[in-house]
Amino acid sequence: MLDSSARLTGLLCGTQPMNDIWAPHTTLQRMLDVEAALARAAAAHRVIPHSAVAAIEAACEASQLDADALVRDAALGGNLAIPLVKQLTARVKAADADASKYVHWGATSQDIIDTATVLQLRDTFTLLDQGLQATCDAVAKLAQTHRATPMIGRTWLQQALPITLGLKFAQWLDALLRHRDRLDALRARVLVLQFGGAAGTLASLRDAAPEVTRTLAEELGLAVPTLPWHTQRDRMADTAALFGMLIGTLGKIARDISLQMQTEVDELAEPAAAGKGGSSTMPHKRNPVGCAAVLTAATRAPGLVATVFAGMVQEHERALGGWQAEWDALPDLARLAGGALAHIQQIACGLNVNEARLAANLDITQGLILGEAVMLALGDSIGRLDAHHLVERASKAAIAGGKTLFDVLAADAAVTDHLPVERLRQLLDPAHYVGQAHAYVDAALALHQTRAARAQSNSRE
Amino acid sequence: MLDSSARLTGLLCGTQPMNDIWAPHTTLQRMLDVEAALARAAAAHRVIPHSAVAAIEAACEASQLDADALVRDAALGGNLAIPLVKQLTARVKAADADASKYVHWGATSQDIIDTATVLQLRDTFTLLDQGLQATCDAVAKLAQTHRATPMIGRTWLQQALPITLGLKFAQWLDALLRHRDRLDALRARVLVLQFGGAAGTLASLRDAAPEVTRTLAEELGLAVPTLPWHTQRDRMADTAALFGMLIGTLGKIARDISLQMQTEVDELAEPAAAGKGGSSTMPHKRNPVGCAAVLTAATRAPGLVATVFAGMVQEHERALGGWQAEWDALPDLARLAGGALAHIQQIACGLNVNEARLAANLDITQGLILGEAVMLALGDSIGRLDAHHLVERASKAAIAGGKTLFDVLAADAAVTDHLPVERLRQLLDPAHYVGQAHAYVDAALALHQTRAARAQSNSRE
Amino acid sequence: MLDSSARLTGLLCGTQPMNDIWAPHTTLQRMLDVEAALARAAAAHRVIPHSAVAAIEAACEASQLDADALVRDAALGGNLAIPLVKQLTARVKAADADASKYVHWGATSQDIIDTATVLQLRDTFTLLDQGLQATCDAVAKLAQTHRATPMIGRTWLQQALPITLGLKFAQWLDALLRHRDRLDALRARVLVLQFGGAAGTLASLRDAAPEVTRTLAEELGLAVPTLPWHTQRDRMADTAALFGMLIGTLGKIARDISLQMQTEVDELAEPAAAGKGGSSTMPHKRNPVGCAAVLTAATRAPGLVATVFAGMVQEHERALGGWQAEWDALPDLARLAGGALAHIQQIACGLNVNEARLAANLDITQGLILGEAVMLALGDSIGRLDAHHLVERASKAAIAGGKTLFDVLAADAAVTDHLPVERLRQLLDPAHYVGQAHAYVDAALALHQTRAARAQSNSRE
Amino acid sequence: MLDSSARLTGLLCGTQPMNDIWAPHTTLQRMLDVEAALARAAAAHRVIPHSAVAAIEAACEASQLDADALVRDAALGGNLAIPLVKQLTARVKAADADASKYVHWGATSQDIIDTATVLQLRDTFTLLDQGLQATCDAVAKLAQTHRATPMIGRTWLQQALPITLGLKFAQWLDALLRHRDRLDALRARVLVLQFGGAAGTLASLRDAAPEVTRTLAEELGLAVPTLPWHTQRDRMADTAALFGMLIGTLGKIARDISLQMQTEVDELAEPAAAGKGGSSTMPHKRNPVGCAAVLTAATRAPGLVATVFAGMVQEHERALGGWQAEWDALPDLARLAGGALAHIQQIACGLNVNEARLAANLDITQGLILGEAVMLALGDSIGRLDAHHLVERASKAAIAGGKTLFDVLAADAAVTDHLPVERLRQLLDPAHYVGQAHAYVDAALALHQTRAARAQSNSRE
Repeated sequence: MLDSSARLTGLLCGTQPMNDIWAPHTTLQRMLDVEAALARAAAAHRVIPHSAVAAIEAACEASQLDADALVRDAALGGNLAIPLVKQLTARVKAADADASKYVHWGATSQDIIDTATVLQLRDTFTLLDQGLQATCDAVAKLAQTHRATPMIGRTWLQQALPITLGLKFAQWLDALLRHRDRLDALRARVLVLQFGGAAGTLASLRDAAPEVTRTLAEELGLAVPTLPWHTQRDRMADTAALFGMLIGTLGKIARDISLQMQTEVDELAEPAAAGKGGSSTMPHKRNPVGCAAVLTAATRAPGLVATVFAGMVQEHERALGGWQAEWDALPDLARLAGGALAHIQQIACGLNVNEARLAANLDITQGLILGEAVMLALGDSIGRLDAHHLVERASKAAIAGGKTLFDVLAADAAVTDHLPVERLRQLLDPAHYVGQAHAYVDAALALHQTRAARAQSNSRE
Repeated sequence: MLDSSARLTGLLCGTQPMNDIWAPHTTLQRMLDVEAALARAAAAHRVIPHSAVAAIEAACEASQLDADALVRDAALGGNLAIPLVKQLTARVKAADADASKYVHWGATSQDIIDTATVLQLRDTFTLLDQGLQATCDAVAKLAQTHRATPMIGRTWLQQALPITLGLKFAQWLDALLRHRDRLDALRARVLVLQFGGAAGTLASLRDAAPEVTRTLAEELGLAVPTLPWHTQRDRMADTAALFGMLIGTLGKIARDISLQMQTEVDELAEPAAAGKGGSSTMPHKRNPVGCAAVLTAATRAPGLVATVFAGMVQEHERALGGWQAEWDALPDLARLAGGALAHIQQIACGLNVNEARLAANLDITQGLILGEAVMLALGDSIGRLDAHHLVERASKAAIAGGKTLFDVLAADAAVTDHLPVERLRQLLDPAHYVGQAHAYVDAALALHQTRAARAQSNSRE
Repeated sequence: MLDSSARLTGLLCGTQPMNDIWAPHTTLQRMLDVEAALARAAAAHRVIPHSAVAAIEAACEASQLDADALVRDAALGGNLAIPLVKQLTARVKAADADASKYVHWGATSQDIIDTATVLQLRDTFTLLDQGLQATCDAVAKLAQTHRATPMIGRTWLQQALPITLGLKFAQWLDALLRHRDRLDALRARVLVLQFGGAAGTLASLRDAAPEVTRTLAEELGLAVPTLPWHTQRDRMADTAALFGMLIGTLGKIARDISLQMQTEVDELAEPAAAGKGGSSTMPHKRNPVGCAAVLTAATRAPGLVATVFAGMVQEHERALGGWQAEWDALPDLARLAGGALAHIQQIACGLNVNEARLAANLDITQGLILGEAVMLALGDSIGRLDAHHLVERASKAAIAGGKTLFDVLAADAAVTDHLPVERLRQLLDPAHYVGQAHAYVDAALALHQTRAARAQSNSRE
Repeated sequence: MLDSSARLTGLLCGTQPMNDIWAPHTTLQRMLDVEAALARAAAAHRVIPHSAVAAIEAACEASQLDADALVRDAALGGNLAIPLVKQLTARVKAADADASKYVHWGATSQDIIDTATVLQLRDTFTLLDQGLQATCDAVAKLAQTHRATPMIGRTWLQQALPITLGLKFAQWLDALLRHRDRLDALRARVLVLQFGGAAGTLASLRDAAPEVTRTLAEELGLAVPTLPWHTQRDRMADTAALFGMLIGTLGKIARDISLQMQTEVDELAEPAAAGKGGSSTMPHKRNPVGCAAVLTAATRAPGLVATVFAGMVQEHERALGGWQAEWDALPDLARLAGGALAHIQQIACGLNVNEARLAANLDITQGLILGEAVMLALGDSIGRLDAHHLVERASKAAIAGGKTLFDVLAADAAVTDHLPVERLRQLLDPAHYVGQAHAYVDAALALHQTRAARAQSNSRE
């Protein structure tokens, strides 16, 4: 009933397009795509007869496979490629007995499985890049809109000094843009062919090996690596790390939003949707369902990244466990990254901002968060040390007396002699003490513009 | 085609019974089992009318659910229980409108999901215990059979001193027996009901809460905990740790076997099976497919254990990500543990022992591995220090001259004055220098006997 | 300057007693303690001369070692025991040349290192048990004091239904008590001798091996295992798991406290201390420094647990990397567990509870959190379904009109016909809708009493 | 006695230069370097008086700090910077009371700690790059020397087909070169200033913030980031990932070497050194001490990488645990990476190659590993299928009769009709069936040349 992409976390975190890329059916089809391309490449260099290609290509259709037998035989052989080649050969034979001799020519199981994975990663990277672009656009728009909206900055989960809501968005944007750059760089490193034959020498292809390799790579749109990389898994670790880092950044965003959605804080809220996060018996609740999914992904990712890294220590020319550990860990990471990104994209596109509460929360400490602003201004007149003592004393008096800092300072001639009440009022306005927040927002937006323009120009070429 | 238990690692590592326990369909059925039991328990204490029970029970059938809607709505609600209750209520309503008001009475989603997981863990524990028992039996038999078979002991991947093959099996057995004890202890701690309602107080059940709790636990055969444990996940971490530890021990066994199966060592081999681990183009190969599956599990388990541990840091009365991270990590660990155990059980039941190679490998160093034995015997006569120097010198001479240590020592009057050639020959027989190996084997076998007798007596009761 | 226990996280998280147990100096001393005990045990069974014991014992003093040489030589030999035995032998020789021949008799490096670690674990377990007892006492006292203090329960970081503050403490207590039980069970499994000699057979001790083993264990107060466990590391994984689980529970407590310390929530606060967590420029801040240290430990623990688990897959009779990976991971976990426990103990002993804010926060939703209480009461009269609709409508009206739920309900004759205003007022009092909270507190306290009585009776024996 | 860099794993795995970079003393000095640079930068833009700089610079000397007080106060304040600034201020005050008012102007603790870490990472990257260069040179030399040395390729720990030893080295080289590229790319991303003040806005620096930022970055030789990145930790995760990946690749190399050093294989050996890896009682042993250290690092790294990734999910403008978790995990990873690289560099520079055993091991299967070569040649004459059957039958006969494959084939007219004995002999020579091995070696060497030339040209500029 529930299909195989329906891992339970996936229910929260998956997206259909990403699940499709990594569905068992697609995995098999990608393997068959590699087999078909191999037949074409081998025939192009007369390693196998041209006449064999059509029958092989025709049989490279995942829906024709007997999945039950595949699963049973994979357990005996140790991987999916062995029974897949067996079934493929049988199907080709039924159509063209001669052609069946040329199935999988020169390749080893890992060539097929790794190259299929690389093809799936290519689709994954494209999907993530689209998601990153859309999310960056949405976050940039939020940063622009709330460039100057004052908000309390919080450190140690305590109110600290004012910032702007735009600054928070700009920080998200800045990190997401770095991930776009990383993804570009990764693509160049990872999208390479795996093709080495049984021991990584392509010995059975004899002199035709280089040409078949080149043509096979062209057929699949992949680069040719220096040499086969069966037990050198840094490319896969690199990929896992990027997925994990992206999820980490998305998790940080989800943590912020969910904290600001707390009933007692109530500054931000995930966009509402019918049936989403509500409770009929508790009408005041609005559960951060999207953030929870992203935080789930962020809890799972480090362990999965560690798994792929642990698997790098492989034996000789083909590994015993380290390679196989990638098979579920990489797809899990891809699904979690895709799902988490989709959630944050959706949230960023419809984030509810409660400006009244943003303003009200800035008042909770009755001005204490702006003591530093007063101290600096006062320091220009009476020296920083005296100003510090004066403001510190006033702050304690405000706390003790339940008064605002303004009331205490405005009643103190030692202050008003140097700072008229109007100036004092201005100093105690959070909007006037946000330092470089606006400039930082502008810088992040400019970076986003440049990046978007570059992407557009690339896609136009 | 490939059903959802067909994770790719699972192809290597899964077993049908364990996959069945954690199949999505079973998960849903266990949740419905809890809902049905809740209806009975609530009715038993007149919290809901007796008349509602039959309709609810009748609808608690997983095959009746609309899986597509379930997946879609779970993403909105944030877990599987919300849409499951919705569909269940609709189905009950179709049969008995009044009864539908009493579905899921007093419970919260997490009550259903956690308790269903506990029921699945109970089945998992039973399966693992059976597997452990069978594996211990097989390993005990191997230890008995090879109690006195000399073998080279290896440290740092270098030949060190003789041991017996039986000792190696006894060490495996000893560790597996500790896991049986851990499993017993865990069962008592983990098989408890989760039932607390929306905030963990069961407020909506008013005074009937204690009785409904007790009856619900009885219905399901679970213990009643001190209080609900929605965000106290030590029980699940404990479970993950046991799965991980068991997999670690099995991984150690697989590492040993695969190293001893190396072409150059050739002492042990996985049992042969048609289509298993062979290669038509490389007939000399016999791939340790079972060991590879176990080592894959051992590469994956630490990251999954870490995930469950990381999830323990949960917020307030219901968590945002930490709980949800368990949903796939625990089933993955259960499947890997079950699969790895089944592989080692199968291997232990049919392990091929190559006694000729065991003996031949003891000769590789031409007696150097027994220098200590000679030194100790010689030390009784001439003092340990002199004996040490003498044997050290002889060893170097043997290496330099390509001779056996026996030849060198037998030609040295300083040795033969104290150790006649026959005694020397005996001292250089590996079988005579295995220390406590036999005693250790006996001790492990005795422990196994005691444990098996206890299990049998328990099961008879 | 900063000594070697001063790892940077340790600055936040360490305690002096735990750091002392795992200081390099103590590690060396424990290894020397094992060497001294071995000399006594071997002499007791005439394996070495009695006359050698005094000189060996006298030299077993860590402060006499040349640490620089130790570090340099450990890198060459691959572990600390090799150069330690070398230096020890040299020191004994300087005093008694004959005695120096009997240093380290029959043992291998790993025997010394593992047994020393077990001795350090024994001290660690004692320290943790004391800490757990004191923490449980403090939390039990908090649970008793606030048994009936109403508080808002929060799920998904949203206000849900009322609970009591005492219930939260009872949940902490219940989990901590389980860790005490686990610690007891672990102690029995882990506090065993490691003694097997070069290949785990004790061959060089010949017939005296069993007696020396027994006496050595008695000397050190450890149990004798079935057989040596050089490459069976489940005991160490078990220990790492307990440390990690304990840290997870403490992390959950720290997460709750830090969330409730937020400026906007302000219900709980870490006890104040001079210089702790304050800020001169931000007098309103009170940083949860203790919680931060515990959360740091909780972020680090899962990776360290995973490391020990990953190390279990060891080669043959002595491992290549897996064993060595324990050397820092286990001490790190012990330090983090000890430090996190000390922080929570200190916080629990002086936790500030802000009852006014607990009450005020229950009012934020203006009664909506009690809709269910009214609905249940009303349902007794008019049926649950009608009651549900009525309360739902009233809740929406309250939200829309900015009124309290009481005001809306009290103005609705359909309600007041069945629930007089006084009854309504009572139903909307959070203290009256906390379900089994009091009973759960009592159950946890009773468990604590039983556990404490048992511990006292054990210590009296 | 043992200083603080003497972590126990460090004994095996550390190098002095890397330990120095991350020693507590250096950490403090780097923090003070940042404070001194901040004073200069602030004075350059008249934010603080020029007269204050000299006194501040003079006091920025780590050896002047009171380490005990630092450790004690760090626990109260929650980080090292708070007490460091306190002590620094006191020391400046003793020399120049006025200057002491300007210590740490505008900065927050995390600015100092993060920027100091970045400075330490810069030194780390330099050290790793030097190590990578030297290691690549040594491995390239090995690949050149053994370009054509035949060796058995192994898959699943079983002998498969011939490769060359040079190919194995070329694979190592290819992976190490990718890490050099990654390191270059990382350097550009990571070597940026952290400077944001209490809430990341630099509000207290008012209009001078941009200039002070720019000058501070110049003083330290770091780039200016778009905006402060206090809770955006992707740069640190990226760094941890590179360290982890590098360790993974080194672990793979160590695994291969240690497997080929097995007594039964004996093809490669770590270079000998006095006191290294030997055993006086077992003179035949040569422990792979260097490989063990690298494999220890490889066992530890995944958990540490996971820790840094897990820490990314940080709260608001300053984190509670996630940031602090980096403090030990990153230095541990740096030390492990540095140590593992140094070990592999040393091994690669002096690796012992046993050509006789390489050749002998190719003969173990008596020609079976070359069945495919014969089959391909025979296939040219009689068709691949018939050739396959013929060779398969011969292989079985060889195994059954204990003969070489050559003997069986040479006696079969069905073979010799098409392949004269001389040709057969050639086909069964492993050196003639290594496929693209030579070409792959050449390709990796060419890549190394290009890379080395680029590095040289860069360093010349």
